[in-house]
Amino acid sequence: MADPGRLERLERRVRELEEELAREKRGRGAGRARIDTMSPEVTDSNPYSRLMALKRMGIVKDYEKIRTFTVAVVGVGGVGSVTAEMLTRCGIGKLLLFDYDKVELANMNRLFFQPHQAGLSKVQAAEHTLRDINPDVQFEVHNYNITTLDNFEHFMDRISNGALEEGKPVDLVLSCVDNFEARMAINTACNELGQIWMESGVSENAVSGHIQLIIPGESACFACAPPLVVAANIDEKTLKREGVCAASLPTTMGVVAGMLVQNVLKYLLNFGTVSYYLGYNAMQDFFPTMSMKPNPQCSDHNCRKQQENYKKKEAARPKEEVIEKEEEIVHEDNDWGIELVSEISEDELKAASGPVPELPEGISVAYTIPDKEENFTAGETVAESEESLEELMAKMRNM
Amino acid sequence: MADPGRLERLERRVRELEEELAREKRGRGAGRARIDTMSPEVTDSNPYSRLMALKRMGIVKDYEKIRTFTVAVVGVGGVGSVTAEMLTRCGIGKLLLFDYDKVELANMNRLFFQPHQAGLSKVQAAEHTLRDINPDVQFEVHNYNITTLDNFEHFMDRISNGALEEGKPVDLVLSCVDNFEARMAINTACNELGQIWMESGVSENAVSGHIQLIIPGESACFACAPPLVVAANIDEKTLKREGVCAASLPTTMGVVAGMLVQNVLKYLLNFGTVSYYLGYNAMQDFFPTMSMKPNPQCSDHNCRKQQENYKKKEAARPKEEVIEKEEEIVHEDNDWGIELVSEISEDELKAASGPVPELPEGISVAYTIPDKEENFTAGETVAESEESLEELMAKMRNM
Repeated sequence: MADPGRLERLERRVRELEEELAREKRGRGAGRARIDTMSPEVTDSNPYSRLMALKRMGIVKDYEKIRTFTVAVVGVGGVGSVTAEMLTRCGIGKLLLFDYDKVELANMNRLFFQPHQAGLSKVQAAEHTLRDINPDVQFEVHNYNITTLDNFEHFMDRISNGALEEGKPVDLVLSCVDNFEARMAINTACNELGQIWMESGVSENAVSGHIQLIIPGESACFACAPPLVVAANIDEKTLKREGVCAASLPTTMGVVAGMLVQNVLKYLLNFGTVSYYLGYNAMQDFFPTMSMKPNPQCSDHNCRKQQENYKKKEAARPKEEVIEKEEEIVHEDNDWGIELVSEISEDELKAASGPVPELPEGISVAYTIPDKEENFTAGETVAESEESLEELMAKMRNM
Repeated sequence: MADPGRLERLERRVRELEEELAREKRGRGAGRARIDTMSPEVTDSNPYSRLMALKRMGIVKDYEKIRTFTVAVVGVGGVGSVTAEMLTRCGIGKLLLFDYDKVELANMNRLFFQPHQAGLSKVQAAEHTLRDINPDVQFEVHNYNITTLDNFEHFMDRISNGALEEGKPVDLVLSCVDNFEARMAINTACNELGQIWMESGVSENAVSGHIQLIIPGESACFACAPPLVVAANIDEKTLKREGVCAASLPTTMGVVAGMLVQNVLKYLLNFGTVSYYLGYNAMQDFFPTMSMKPNPQCSDHNCRKQQENYKKKEAARPKEEVIEKEEEIVHEDNDWGIELVSEISEDELKAASGPVPELPEGISVAYTIPDKEENFTAGETVAESEESLEELMAKMRNM
């Protein structure tokens, strides 16, 4: 016989098809039962065995602590949905999801959503899938635009009170949005609340991205410096703008989500070095890192206030209390407080030319922060009113 | 043969079951309709609009060409499943999937598989999900271990003939396996066939990984040098070994799959710089790149033969024909043909101490290639027989 294995393969295929058909007819028995305690037991039926193994490998001291944390993900698109899925599979305690978009077939070139979900709201579709994947995680989803006045107030409230223990703030806010207004809203909220958050972004040409850790008062906020992108040796005009059909790739978005959640895990579970800024240039496989101090002249008064608080706290803190994570980051004074923590030397940085702030080779600003409009126009959304969120917030507080 | 009609009956049964299963699935109304031509039209219902936008952005000249390519993915676990999903969402022409494992709840800490799929074969579950995501892709799945004798022969046959146009070889083979034997089998097959492939791997402690492009005769094969890993400043003894419950993270595996498929897209669609080796150290967010020439004393005679062919081809090739992709990679002669294409200097490389081959800081060998056993033991699998695949192949060809 020409192919001796053919008979065996056909027999196996028949058995497989029969099993699949039986399962299909039974109807999809979705999900798994809840699990009370994370166990390190090495069995095929333990969804946490490979995570708890991080302890045995000496990487994480106390992995089960993951269950005590709450993370808010703002924007459940190409980066945010994968971010939420990774955190869900890692067994995070609680996830808050914010988005106001619907799933479209045009999103199918990124991971996570599936064609049969087209038309559903992104948060609703995401919650459904994520609950099936891990019923141990608590979900709270909000199908609204955080930049409108009343939604922004609600968003601030949930960030401040939406932890596992109601009334406590979330542990981290992750920005996975795709526009300037939404990033600015998150920045405004986190500066006011002193909430630690991480930014993420992917360029409009789909071949670069970045993540950034923002500790109010300690590292540069979104208003301190224009948003940074890893330029990809292409025309800068093609970078993220309003109203253009952006290109996107599941690869770039998957890498950015992976870098983001890895940074979240390192931050929450206290292992490795947490990155303040990590870029990804897919064209050259170049991954620049750096950190930036806040701008003392930042336009956000809450950022300036947080800077004062941080200075006081640092001055009062005895040396022994400095935690390891912070020791690993070198802070030196220069105009913009930019220090590189990677392979690019201080000299190379100083020699680099480019827009303010001075940036290492390969990184440039995505766009500059628009001038504030002085005319007040009552409008439902910040984007529509063309007014700064800060001003709107001030108005709201005076109401 | 005892029952001459058995083969025909089994083939008929497979067809019947496939039809019934398709009918059953259609009833659920999953997925979307097939699309004949990739359109750049910017509508919510076009799943390819964001990919075709790569042309308008000046990144890819001819994105629709993706539909003409066939990629084989060997190993559909934490890296392979995400790799297959990314290629499916990018609209690859045809995917061949090879795995012999079943989905378990213990896999739920990585992306892709869902709890309701526990018990299904990985290739079967993957095909089902991927078809729903993109019915334009052709799938061919094989639920077997490629390292057994007859399966290896069948694997070689499908790599050589399984392209969109039956009889033509696949465009790329991607190794997403988690063990030495399977990697060695892929290496043996690709050296014999002159098949270009990419390797991927994640360390047992879950915090480092790598991808590697192997062009037989041109860059180092898996037998030329021991497999490389990006060491994560931890005890080397915790790196990948047989029989240990490895830790894994959806983050690290998502990043490695993203780097791998990005390299595949750059290679197939001819944009950016294709990386010969790209590592990922999650603890320090360090991403070393380098390239390695083949070892003239490689133990695989087909690798040595491919090296001779490559030398002849290079000598005969007129300068004008050198394609751009290759021009970007610097080749210099040294003992091991190692050149760095990243931030680490030649001097730093030479100063680095470590096992042969000399490697840049941060990269070390995962394990050495075991000595060949001279005793022949008839056994079903290569792993069981403890004999080299090469020897088994030679024996098989003489049968």
